[in-house]
Amino acid sequence: MEKCLRQMRSSGSLHRTYMIYYLRIFAAVFILLLIIQFTSSIRSSNTLKASLKASVPPSFFPQIIVITPTYRRSTRLADMTRMANTLSHIKNLYWIVIEDGNNKVKAVEKLLNRTALPYIYLPAKTPPGYPRRGWYQRTMALQYLRNNSNLISDKSKKSVVYFADDDNSYDIRLFNDYIRNVQKVGIWAVGFAGGALVESPDVVNGTVVGWNVVWHKKRKFATDMAGFAVALDVVLNSTAVFGKSCNRGLGAPETCFLEDLGLQTHDLEPFGFDEEEREILVWHTKTAKVILNKRVADTNGFFVE
Amino acid sequence: MEKCLRQMRSSGSLHRTYMIYYLRIFAAVFILLLIIQFTSSIRSSNTLKASLKASVPPSFFPQIIVITPTYRRSTRLADMTRMANTLSHIKNLYWIVIEDGNNKVKAVEKLLNRTALPYIYLPAKTPPGYPRRGWYQRTMALQYLRNNSNLISDKSKKSVVYFADDDNSYDIRLFNDYIRNVQKVGIWAVGFAGGALVESPDVVNGTVVGWNVVWHKKRKFATDMAGFAVALDVVLNSTAVFGKSCNRGLGAPETCFLEDLGLQTHDLEPFGFDEEEREILVWHTKTAKVILNKRVADTNGFFVE
Repeated sequence: MEKCLRQMRSSGSLHRTYMIYYLRIFAAVFILLLIIQFTSSIRSSNTLKASLKASVPPSFFPQIIVITPTYRRSTRLADMTRMANTLSHIKNLYWIVIEDGNNKVKAVEKLLNRTALPYIYLPAKTPPGYPRRGWYQRTMALQYLRNNSNLISDKSKKSVVYFADDDNSYDIRLFNDYIRNVQKVGIWAVGFAGGALVESPDVVNGTVVGWNVVWHKKRKFATDMAGFAVALDVVLNSTAVFGKSCNRGLGAPETCFLEDLGLQTHDLEPFGFDEEEREILVWHTKTAKVILNKRVADTNGFFVE
Repeated sequence: MEKCLRQMRSSGSLHRTYMIYYLRIFAAVFILLLIIQFTSSIRSSNTLKASLKASVPPSFFPQIIVITPTYRRSTRLADMTRMANTLSHIKNLYWIVIEDGNNKVKAVEKLLNRTALPYIYLPAKTPPGYPRRGWYQRTMALQYLRNNSNLISDKSKKSVVYFADDDNSYDIRLFNDYIRNVQKVGIWAVGFAGGALVESPDVVNGTVVGWNVVWHKKRKFATDMAGFAVALDVVLNSTAVFGKSCNRGLGAPETCFLEDLGLQTHDLEPFGFDEEEREILVWHTKTAKVILNKRVADTNGFFVE
């Protein structure tokens, strides 16, 4: 019996030794996997530092819906390429691109496909009577959004709508720090808009009290299209569009749209005014038209618009 | 003894049960970690599809050294922002930025810092006698490169040098598919250069036989600055710069530089000519100057150049 107990003890301790052995292997593999996970996350953050925010699963922070009207011109693919490169840094972004034409353009569709962004690309040619300034395309985008909001935003708790033209210049902080944090309607400075170096709301103690603009200061919302973003639910709870009737606001559709959304000045949430050094995060840039010495019909097989 | 053996067996089987139990936990945790690893890698690839190439450790493929001359102007931060957003998608890229000025500009330095790109930012004001077209800044960049190539490229087997102006538009495939694969000197089409919609080498059976350009077709290398890239060792084995004496090539520094590198037409490796649909991956765009209705001195605290 004595021997039997000793055997049992030694047998138990042998099993315990095996177990400790297995547990050690388990711990080593676990640590190794943690290291791989850590180095891979460091490597993946080697684009923009801001992409460190990628560690938050996309659906936990608000979705950004970008509406871009576009049209055929020689510099369009260059502009859309730069814009796609910028938007591709932004997580949980849905891109609605509306072509001013009867058909989609294959090169644009291929460009959108090359990004990993979720998107919809639709043609909607400006009908007679509409100014050809993207009004009809933005209206069609809003209509698409109202009919398909569940399809687009069902995985997100909150979505924010932003109108972004394809030739502007965007700092990625505009999306991650400003647009993403809009509760109802966000407002910020825009470079090179309305004939000014900077167009911005005049903000005192976190409240918009007026407008630092050159062009038509008396507009209720004297902002450029690139200077605001609106919560999706505000858009869905209204019928506001960029209609032909949107001719109030001295020909500026921005104030007309914001008024039609039922917004008031006190609804505006200013961004970027608390900073010690105020920065512009979006510029209303224009790409210079191509000046040809001589029209070269033969592009040597290269696609141009 | 019979009882003892039974006890031992039951004791052994108990330990075995525990071990199987632990191994099951281990397997479950292992599978869980693999799933986390997999989803995180999918999430991190949610920028551009091309970034899937990120799974190759950077030092295994050639490094790209981008040289960018820059200067103060109102649209510069907008242009540099777009360019930084594009370059931030490219792995194993080193950015040499040279300011045409006596001092660095803080806003540019902050912009470069926000990217996770390795870079050097140096001021080098154009001395009298040099054309103010980035020649002196590119020359200083080449000098810096020759003095510090070990510092910049020691981890890479091979490096390729590319001159990229801050207002051009770049498709990320230009870097990943073209520049990265240059052996000696690569050449490709550029949009909107030299008064043409497309400037490109004339390629027959993979060989450059001439130039499809409008402006000064007789140049030995009738290419735009954005249309070629050169292996670092070719640069290091020469003293070629963009000197004041670089006034051959009818005032175009590109052909002068390539000739001074000791290159011949048969050294040129054309890219993008095998494709069924030829595409432009770089455009010589210009950002339109800001037209102010009225000079607004008060930018409401926002920084402008």
